[in-house]
Formats: sequence, C-alpha cells, structure tokens
Amino acid sequence: MTEFGARLAAMRATAPLVQNITNYVAMNVMANVMLAAGASPAMVHAEEEAAEFAGFTQALTINIGTLSGPWVASMEAAARTAAGKGTPWVLDPVAVGATAFRRETGARLVALKPTVVRGNASEIMALAGDAGRGKGVDSADGVEAAEDAARRLAGVTGGVVAVTGPVDYVTDGTRGWRIANGDPMMPKITALGCSLTGIVGAFLVGQPAAEATVAALAYYGLAGERAAQASGGPGSFAVAFLDALHGLTPEALEAGARVSAA
Amino acid sequence: MTEFGARLAAMRATAPLVQNITNYVAMNVMANVMLAAGASPAMVHAEEEAAEFAGFTQALTINIGTLSGPWVASMEAAARTAAGKGTPWVLDPVAVGATAFRRETGARLVALKPTVVRGNASEIMALAGDAGRGKGVDSADGVEAAEDAARRLAGVTGGVVAVTGPVDYVTDGTRGWRIANGDPMMPKITALGCSLTGIVGAFLVGQPAAEATVAALAYYGLAGERAAQASGGPGSFAVAFLDALHGLTPEALEAGARVSAA
Amino acid sequence: MTEFGARLAAMRATAPLVQNITNYVAMNVMANVMLAAGASPAMVHAEEEAAEFAGFTQALTINIGTLSGPWVASMEAAARTAAGKGTPWVLDPVAVGATAFRRETGARLVALKPTVVRGNASEIMALAGDAGRGKGVDSADGVEAAEDAARRLAGVTGGVVAVTGPVDYVTDGTRGWRIANGDPMMPKITALGCSLTGIVGAFLVGQPAAEATVAALAYYGLAGERAAQASGGPGSFAVAFLDALHGLTPEALEAGARVSAA
Repeated sequence: MTEFGARLAAMRATAPLVQNITNYVAMNVMANVMLAAGASPAMVHAEEEAAEFAGFTQALTINIGTLSGPWVASMEAAARTAAGKGTPWVLDPVAVGATAFRRETGARLVALKPTVVRGNASEIMALAGDAGRGKGVDSADGVEAAEDAARRLAGVTGGVVAVTGPVDYVTDGTRGWRIANGDPMMPKITALGCSLTGIVGAFLVGQPAAEATVAALAYYGLAGERAAQASGGPGSFAVAFLDALHGLTPEALEAGARVSAA
Repeated sequence: MTEFGARLAAMRATAPLVQNITNYVAMNVMANVMLAAGASPAMVHAEEEAAEFAGFTQALTINIGTLSGPWVASMEAAARTAAGKGTPWVLDPVAVGATAFRRETGARLVALKPTVVRGNASEIMALAGDAGRGKGVDSADGVEAAEDAARRLAGVTGGVVAVTGPVDYVTDGTRGWRIANGDPMMPKITALGCSLTGIVGAFLVGQPAAEATVAALAYYGLAGERAAQASGGPGSFAVAFLDALHGLTPEALEAGARVSAA
Repeated sequence: MTEFGARLAAMRATAPLVQNITNYVAMNVMANVMLAAGASPAMVHAEEEAAEFAGFTQALTINIGTLSGPWVASMEAAARTAAGKGTPWVLDPVAVGATAFRRETGARLVALKPTVVRGNASEIMALAGDAGRGKGVDSADGVEAAEDAARRLAGVTGGVVAVTGPVDYVTDGTRGWRIANGDPMMPKITALGCSLTGIVGAFLVGQPAAEATVAALAYYGLAGERAAQASGGPGSFAVAFLDALHGLTPEALEAGARVSAA
C-alpha cells in the first residue's frame, strides 16, 4: 500500500464535517486534534438531534467511553441514519469488556455494521467475544493477540477493524497491514486513542475504508514521533502533537509512513 | 470609542463571579480562559441548582453547543432569574441553524432578551430568521453578510449583538463598531468562540453593554495576535493564548485595539 | 513524617486503577494529571455501571463539581460499593456551600465515611456545618480558619481530611500536618484542585491514609514549584506542570517536600 500522503491531502481538501458522539473526557482534545489535522468536527450527541445531524454529516464516529441510557439511544439512532445514507461511521468500543452495560451496548452497535471499528487489543478481543484481560480503559493484551479476533470481527461487520497499540494492525477480514509509526508517550495523554477515531472518520470521506484507515494511523503515529522529538514530558508532548498534526505535509507522510502487509 | 484598557482594568478589579452554562467541549478551556483573564468562572448547569446560582452570580452566559432536554430547562430558568435581578447575561447560539431542536431553543432564549448575543455570522443570521449557510459549528457566511441580521436581532432583544469573525461587528441596533483584532489560527482551536462569550460576560459586570462587549472583543483578539507571534501551530498557540490573556496589560490593550465606528 | 519519595515510588509501582466520578470541567485534565503521575485513571460515572466498576477499582474518587440527579445516585452507589469492599475513596466537595442541592449531596456522601475528604477551606467549613464565605468554586476563607472544622469532620468520618490552599493542612482528627509546597499560579488553572483529588486516590492504594495524603500533597505542590520555574503564564504553567508530575523523582520529592507537624 502506498499513497498515504495523497490520502492526507484528499482529507484536507475535503475538510469533512464529522459528527462525533464521544465521551466527555475526549470531547475537547478530539475536536482540537481534528481541527489541527484539517477536518471540521461537530460534537453532537443529544437524543433530540443526533439522528437529524447524522442525516447530513459526511462521517460519524461513536465512542462508548462515558455511556448513559439516553446516549445509547442517540448512538443507535445516529448509526442507523448514517448506515441508511451510506455515510461512513466508526465505532470506538472504549473499555467494552469492563461492565455488562458496555458489553451490551457494544454488541448492539456492532450489529449496525460500522465501516471501521478502532480499539485497543483488549477492546477488540472483548467485542469479538474473546476473554481479554482489560478492566479499565488501557489494554492488558498485546496487538498480536487480537489479530485473529480482529479478522473475525471484520467478518461480522463486513467492514474494517483496526487494533491500535505499539504496532497497529488493520484488517478488512481478508487483507491485513501493520503500521509501526507512533511513540510510547502517546498513551500517557488521555483520549489520544479516542481522538484518532475522529481522524479515521475524517479520512474515510470519499476514500476506500481500508486504505483510508491505514493512512490515518500512519499520519497519527508519525505526528507522535515528531512530537516526541520536540517535548520533554506528557504536557509538552500534547502541545507538540497538535502542532505536528497541523504541520505534517503529505510528502513527509509518504516518506515517513512505516506500513507493511501482514 | 476609547477606554478599552480601562474596561479591562475594571473587569480585573471586580474579578466577577460568572456562571456559565456551556457545552462539554468548551467547559475546561472556557474556565481557563476566564481565569487567565482575571474573572472567576463557575460552570453550573444542573436543573437542580442553575436558577438558584443565577440568583447571586454577577453575570451569566448560556451556550447551546451540546444541548439536551434538561439543560434547556436550566437555561431558561437561569436566564429568567438573571433577567429578573437585572444581572447581565450573554447568549451564544452555537450552530443554532443546524437542527430543529437548536432553532427552537434559540428562539426561546432570544425571547428572554439577552443583554448580549455573540455568535458567528451563520448563527446570527439563523437566529434573526435569515437563511444562513452554516450546517456545523463553523460559519459559512462572512461577517458583513450578517450585519443587517445583527441590527434586527438587537431590535428584538433590546440589547447588543456581536458577530465575530476575521473582523468582528458589534451593534446595539443603532450604533455599530468593527473590531479588527485577531489571528487566523483562532478558529483552529476548539471552543475559543465559546470562551470569548465568557469574557464578554465578565466585562459586562458594572459596565455599559456595548462598550464592554467591544473592549472584550478587542482584548481577546489582541491576545490572539500576541499568541501567534509566540507559537508554531494550534497546540502552542492555545498555550501562548492563555499566557497572553493573563499578561496583557490595560495599556497594551489601549494601544493595540483596532476599533472603528461602522 | 518522612518517606514521601517512597510513597510516590510505591504509587508508580502499583500504577493503580482509580475510578473517578468527577465534573465535566475536570475530566480531561484530571485524567492527564493522573497519567502523568503514573496512575491508571478511569472516568466512569453512569448510573448503569458506576457501582459495578467500583467493585473492582483499586480506589474511587467522587467530586460534586457538576451535579445532577442521576449522578448523585451513581455517587452513592459507587461509594457504598467501595466502602463495602474496603476500597479507599476520596470525596471532593466542590462548592458544597453554594446551593441547597450541593449541601444535601455533600451531607449524604459524608455519611458514607470517605477515607479522605479534600477541599478548600470554604468547602471543608461548609461540610462541617460552619458558615464559610465561599459562594463559587474558589475559597473565600483561609486554610487556618478551617483547621478546627477539618478536625471535627475527621471525627465524623473516622478518616482523613485535607484542606488545600497556599499551605495545606491534613488531619486524621488527632494528628495534623502542614504542607508548604505549591505555587500561586495553581489556582489560575481550572480543575487542578479536582485533579489533586485523583492523585490522593492513587496514593491511597496499599498505603496508610494520612501518610499517603500528605505525600500526595507534597508531590503535587512540588511539581507546581517546578512548573512555575519553567513557565510564563497559566497556559505554559499547565503544560510544564504535567511534565513536572511525570519527571519528578522520588529522590527529588524526598528532598523538596516541606512538611511539618501541626
């Protein structure tokens, strides 16, 4: 796979309107990440309007990080609307294995066939029905342990599944790729995983799902590498990361992406 | 109009308690912006206490960015209490034209006659009943296109209306001003518009509404200009912006404000 | 009291899973503060799952900053579960004296006997039944004025009470300590007090409550001192503060802690 830079350029040229139903922890940083990348995020989750908004957004992302009853209704209504319109949507199953409420919600959203599911290894394993070890929001399992679960999950959704971690894995159920970009500081800043889900959503607009997802992950990880060079801790990393997302050129992404077939 | 620096000094001397019912995306950065400027923000929105708190706050701001049924009740109760006490309050009609739920809520709040309405061009046009082009939270219309709508809206509320953008426009229905301070990076940081609404609220305490609003906008834009000189992307801009809000002196504001009659 | 550095090292070695039911303003920065320090925060507040999660978390913190009816139910259920399991939990009574709704909620949570209560002077006084002067989220009373209230409150809960301010005061009802670390810029960044509550929660896991609380406060204040040296305003302070929380070593804490018996 090549043309990562071209996919970044296409996303920026579109500046897609992306509706995000995400958790309270992530809302601000996710919006800033997406603005820095060149997308147009809208954080619209209320039951009274989420489905209506999903009728005209260019992509939708749904994150179950801070759930509640009314939000689950919004998520399902918005996902149904997006699916009905052929609008791409991404599911981020945060800590899906942690409680019964999350497991049930995750299963209901998977049944609505997300274009992409993006989670850490423990989350993807839990969503595929495997016994992962994650209790909180951090993964207790390695990415490789979740590759089989990812392929099976892609078989269920008919879409793409991305397992992110030190080396990411992306599959459409048949093909697979590994993306080696990133930096160990990234999990030390809250909601960077959630925010990546928004970047994936933005890349999906008008681009093929697997290729867009791989390019989004390489772009995000490479920005993390740049940020690490310019920072001395998680506070300055987060600042430098937004600058890097904004400043990274398609040419630099094409040169710096470390993607291999899996 | 002059004495922008004196209005900043007066706001800081008061360190006003400002109650903000704002969206989840903006809460943290809005509080930080207001603290950096010298105000005392309180983010109190729950139906069980919003109106009680509005009974002793020195100013109130209401932002419809992330709406829900119970919040609309809080907003109306708080606005009624503030209006009844003669406490200044500011309406920020985020994406008011995007969904039916927002249009209805916006109309109900306008009927409670906000001291100031602050929005982007698309929002002000939608609130005045014009067909703006904004679908998400970003404006699709230029400030000049909204000047007539702003004057008509001010006629309805009997208050001040501020249209913010590259060059801001403020009117009390009769008089008008343009504020040319600001930097193109500002819309790349989420919720800086929402946060400005809090700054306007703080300036309103004990000061005439139109003059306070113009001074608040000039102060905010000038801090953005300072931040741009000290940053290399949206991440470092946001950091430098808080530093600039904190460090900007009344003298520097008086010298740097770029305000003209319109 | 000594061995502050050893308590920091123990917390990092445990990397404890800490469930936080906190306000919307604090969620993001609190998670970042806890990650920077070396803990594993989980922001889980929904009625449908808060108590279940409290059954396996290693510590729990409850902050009443942005209350609502359903959240109060979550808070009580989670606190009951934690107490029943012997899991340490911390109460942060934000602005508890401001409204009737907060006073009632605060009283109900105190009755569940938190391991530690951490608040500013006005909040501790209000919680102990004294007439403090705080109306918003900022303290209007000095720490010393709240020392008697703190001791009485510790008598009621059977736990530890921490009053934070320019010089912090910690008591278990019998013994007392003062912690002089900190910087005047800290109250200018929103939710740093709320975030400190999470750090206290993380230190409590497997460590005695009074000693853990004192060490957590010294660590936090010392990181603030470091941040002040590396910053020029509240924006850069917040960034440097996260870097300092991450970089501060147990040895530096042992050398820099300024704790005295009271």
